Amino acid sequence: MFKVGLLGAGRIAGVHATAITSHPNSTLAAVSDYFPENAEKLAAQYGSVARTTEDIIADPSIDAVLIATPTDTHSDLIEAATAAGKAVLCEKPVDLSLGRARDCLAASSKHGQPIMIGFNRRFDPNFGALKAALDAGEIGKAELLSITSFDPAPPPVSYIKVSGGLFRDMMIHDFDMANFMMGAAPVTVMATASCVVDPEIGAAGDVDTAVVTLSYADGRIAVIKNSRRAAYGYDQRVELLGSGGLLQAQNMLENTVVKSTTAGVTGAKPTYFFLERYMPAYAAEWAAFVNALKTGTDMPVTLSDGIDALAMAEAATQSAKTGLPVKLSDI
Amino acid sequence: MFKVGLLGAGRIAGVHATAITSHPNSTLAAVSDYFPENAEKLAAQYGSVARTTEDIIADPSIDAVLIATPTDTHSDLIEAATAAGKAVLCEKPVDLSLGRARDCLAASSKHGQPIMIGFNRRFDPNFGALKAALDAGEIGKAELLSITSFDPAPPPVSYIKVSGGLFRDMMIHDFDMANFMMGAAPVTVMATASCVVDPEIGAAGDVDTAVVTLSYADGRIAVIKNSRRAAYGYDQRVELLGSGGLLQAQNMLENTVVKSTTAGVTGAKPTYFFLERYMPAYAAEWAAFVNALKTGTDMPVTLSDGIDALAMAEAATQSAKTGLPVKLSDI
Amino acid sequence: MFKVGLLGAGRIAGVHATAITSHPNSTLAAVSDYFPENAEKLAAQYGSVARTTEDIIADPSIDAVLIATPTDTHSDLIEAATAAGKAVLCEKPVDLSLGRARDCLAASSKHGQPIMIGFNRRFDPNFGALKAALDAGEIGKAELLSITSFDPAPPPVSYIKVSGGLFRDMMIHDFDMANFMMGAAPVTVMATASCVVDPEIGAAGDVDTAVVTLSYADGRIAVIKNSRRAAYGYDQRVELLGSGGLLQAQNMLENTVVKSTTAGVTGAKPTYFFLERYMPAYAAEWAAFVNALKTGTDMPVTLSDGIDALAMAEAATQSAKTGLPVKLSDI
Amino acid sequence: MFKVGLLGAGRIAGVHATAITSHPNSTLAAVSDYFPENAEKLAAQYGSVARTTEDIIADPSIDAVLIATPTDTHSDLIEAATAAGKAVLCEKPVDLSLGRARDCLAASSKHGQPIMIGFNRRFDPNFGALKAALDAGEIGKAELLSITSFDPAPPPVSYIKVSGGLFRDMMIHDFDMANFMMGAAPVTVMATASCVVDPEIGAAGDVDTAVVTLSYADGRIAVIKNSRRAAYGYDQRVELLGSGGLLQAQNMLENTVVKSTTAGVTGAKPTYFFLERYMPAYAAEWAAFVNALKTGTDMPVTLSDGIDALAMAEAATQSAKTGLPVKLSDI
Repeated sequence: MFKVGLLGAGRIAGVHATAITSHPNSTLAAVSDYFPENAEKLAAQYGSVARTTEDIIADPSIDAVLIATPTDTHSDLIEAATAAGKAVLCEKPVDLSLGRARDCLAASSKHGQPIMIGFNRRFDPNFGALKAALDAGEIGKAELLSITSFDPAPPPVSYIKVSGGLFRDMMIHDFDMANFMMGAAPVTVMATASCVVDPEIGAAGDVDTAVVTLSYADGRIAVIKNSRRAAYGYDQRVELLGSGGLLQAQNMLENTVVKSTTAGVTGAKPTYFFLERYMPAYAAEWAAFVNALKTGTDMPVTLSDGIDALAMAEAATQSAKTGLPVKLSDI
Repeated sequence: MFKVGLLGAGRIAGVHATAITSHPNSTLAAVSDYFPENAEKLAAQYGSVARTTEDIIADPSIDAVLIATPTDTHSDLIEAATAAGKAVLCEKPVDLSLGRARDCLAASSKHGQPIMIGFNRRFDPNFGALKAALDAGEIGKAELLSITSFDPAPPPVSYIKVSGGLFRDMMIHDFDMANFMMGAAPVTVMATASCVVDPEIGAAGDVDTAVVTLSYADGRIAVIKNSRRAAYGYDQRVELLGSGGLLQAQNMLENTVVKSTTAGVTGAKPTYFFLERYMPAYAAEWAAFVNALKTGTDMPVTLSDGIDALAMAEAATQSAKTGLPVKLSDI
Repeated sequence: MFKVGLLGAGRIAGVHATAITSHPNSTLAAVSDYFPENAEKLAAQYGSVARTTEDIIADPSIDAVLIATPTDTHSDLIEAATAAGKAVLCEKPVDLSLGRARDCLAASSKHGQPIMIGFNRRFDPNFGALKAALDAGEIGKAELLSITSFDPAPPPVSYIKVSGGLFRDMMIHDFDMANFMMGAAPVTVMATASCVVDPEIGAAGDVDTAVVTLSYADGRIAVIKNSRRAAYGYDQRVELLGSGGLLQAQNMLENTVVKSTTAGVTGAKPTYFFLERYMPAYAAEWAAFVNALKTGTDMPVTLSDGIDALAMAEAATQSAKTGLPVKLSDI
Repeated sequence: MFKVGLLGAGRIAGVHATAITSHPNSTLAAVSDYFPENAEKLAAQYGSVARTTEDIIADPSIDAVLIATPTDTHSDLIEAATAAGKAVLCEKPVDLSLGRARDCLAASSKHGQPIMIGFNRRFDPNFGALKAALDAGEIGKAELLSITSFDPAPPPVSYIKVSGGLFRDMMIHDFDMANFMMGAAPVTVMATASCVVDPEIGAAGDVDTAVVTLSYADGRIAVIKNSRRAAYGYDQRVELLGSGGLLQAQNMLENTVVKSTTAGVTGAKPTYFFLERYMPAYAAEWAAFVNALKTGTDMPVTLSDGIDALAMAEAATQSAKTGLPVKLSDI
């Protein structure tokens, strides 16, 4: 039974608390938060206790920490926890600064502790089934990957301003998905982006609509489409053309009811947002972390994976500004 | 090149005229109608000539007649045309009277001419693909057949009164479909029917909603559902459970566009009615008739098939009245 | 916080244990089983204790019992638990004997305790959404209901022999679904059934394939199709034609991946069996029970509902034997 | 009744011959071809006569010509036919040389004859329905367009060598589709292309896989994906995200049959290639041409539209070579 300290008590921390307590091999030993009353509340709900982050990291009886705090604390906490001998599962992104993330990798890797980055979408059963079919050779060799990733509605502009921008905040998931599916980093990143959803996002210096094309050394191509707004809900699709066919992971729907009237044939919308869509993925992500700890095998998503995605976000940000392709090796 | 006389110049005759003239091995030699001006008009459109029915049947240069006249003339015309040495394709139903249809079979079969009954749905590419998959063993042995057949809107009550009733007028297509799929006649027919769409249909002595269950000697079961009204269009589906799986022939849609908004995910309605839905089937039906003539092989749907379906309609009509199952051998 | 005693520690009891412990207003106070070691094991997993059924029922601190024991104990336990002042959620069916179930209703109702029968499918989000759309008038007035309910594979013949037969064991869910959707009991029940899946089921005196037609006083019709085998998985669909359109609740699929190759366009199979398909329904069922307790409102599925479904199963069993329709009022 | 001369007697000419003869307001007056025997054969099949191209153009009784000859003859024939006072429907592309096409526009426009370019996909009922929904405001303002266009299999390398390359030969349809949907030309064109399907295509100096991103003055973005090979058939989809939702035109399938077995749930493949998929579009295209002639209204696709698409192909070809975005105004 792994004893787990949960750092952070916000909305996503609640999702992780459920995953930790439901898993037969892990228990929620303690919860911390910047606002102690939040930690108290979450701990009470899940039969755990609230402590300070420092206490948790210092407690030798705790095997692992799950870092679900604000992004700008991730690198420090990864370093502190690994230095204290703990396994770490850290929410994405590692950091908004690529340099800081690379320093964190250097500093933390010397402690030899397992570190996993929470790219939850790799554990979505749909994307997982697509990847499994690809790996099984069901469509031959991959040639052209398309990722569609639209949020239901833009976040507040106050969030946009501190988010690091669309590429680091939103498309970073899709960069990791591309790496997961293609099994290699691209050579060049070309971004086309604009602000057509909400001019206030543009005024804040960000974009809300973007298309990024990734070129690979062997001629394969990937294209990622992002929009901050899809009126119909969270649109999360992956499509991969291979030499022998096509694989598509489509949206999950709220229910399977279809209504046929004079107005047409209408089905349910996609599940609304990431908590609904990726709930099974969070449980599977935690199970994969625990399994890697138990078996001593490599983490399924490493800190390096997190840095790779961050570098692609950096390249896309540059490309969108200059209107020119960026070599990933220049980042 | 087969020279064809078209008896009748109504709406369905126009569909057949297109099929005849488009086929590389048949030509529309003449058209007749009870109202000569209708025959003139149709003949002009398709580069043919208008003549009387008698003339057409008497003309030895005409190889085949397509009978698309009112139902109560079918038997007489089949007998006259076969007596004159012509091949016949006759629209369904053979006759509203089972006795008359049986007499027609006896009278016409002695002339040795090929006779096909126009159960167009057997030639629908969707139902045809389902049957081909069944025959290829793709779902093993058939066990449970379901046919859904809803019209978009009820016909005028004036038509209902002379139609022979829902079972002879509408479900007769589905009885033939059951025979086509199951490859055998049922032992018993059990009908449950009511009038819930339009009370005037009930006042005219007919029903507008019906479920018929067919039991086969080997334990297989078929169920047919009919309604005179489906607000969303013509609903024509077949579903067959077998020992190894399920086959479903679904509706054809007006187009493939899907719209996702806050109101849900909406696709097009089914094609509106039989002319739209079965246009490819009419062409394929004619091609099958010509092919049987050319190759001298058996007609794909015989006069006996038409009588079998009529007997099932008769049984269902009785069953709906008595509320009891009817043995087909008693009809 | 409601303290709950769980009677029975089999597979379905585990599902209920998860629902009870996950619900913010209920706690699993104790577990019993005929085999005490099973109760011990389940209790340990969920942080509860194992006790005898008698102890649990006698303990005044326990508010409610969930009965998940073999069917032949249901009536006795309902009576004992309500006599002891407990609220009851009892797995379906109430009893295999209609007479015993009716006696149970008489005996238990005088204690004034809330009793709910676990027809879990009413709480499936898909069927629930269909019912909500119907109640909202989205397809006008209901006219023709179709329920398709196929198990992935037949149970062992040893189970068949004690199951009460297909109508009481399997189709009873569909009878309740018909009552849920139609909001009324039918007038007549007509069953057509046979054994085409496995002759050993027939040798055991049961059927494995059945179609039941229900006629309602106002002319509406419902048809239920059951098969003990669907090679592709658990097939659970409801389809309702109304005056203004059609509602269909389709199967839930294992995932949303679609593969297009030379072999066609292939999606995932339906979720395999009832535990996978109805997992959300079991949680929603428990929440509905707790909510009714909290608010003092009527139970959403009553003991009478359970008896109604059982009477329909009885009628169908008779009808399948005689080949004749049975009036529900004669049962 | 418009008398039409058909220039060219190849495969696509046969499709046009059917459209011309089926239309109530047009007749096939004559057919020509470089190989007179081909013209003879096609003319015989459709009740027309074979003549030389020169004769047809010189014949004052002929109202219009349909140009279905090799691409390098299009400009000369457009000029000759309009000079002779004929209306023209010319197959795409206008020319492989943008300069020659522009000269053709200058030369032919002074004759004042109506000229339509055969971008058949604008008349596909699915893309047409999508455009109609957009124009009706059903998804608000367009923001992000995606066009997927994969051929089932690459053409022979001998064809590749004279085709003008993927952008002029294949993606030119998609450039026109983008112009049709967006209602404006893009500002920049950025192409990423490679050869991953067949190295012989690369050896012939062409690419077989490409992604092109189009940027519009108002911030909208379009992305086009092409591959010369889709093992499952002809993949032709358009998807448009707007401020109020998403529109998707999906593939047409060979039939509607769905098979569920232990292997999954399998439907039919997309219709195989352009003749099957766009057969209704060719008829609608011809009807639109005849309608514009009859009513004296503007042609729905003009020679300028053809030149616009060609300029985009030119820009994409340059971009793919340099790896840099190209401004359309520089072409």
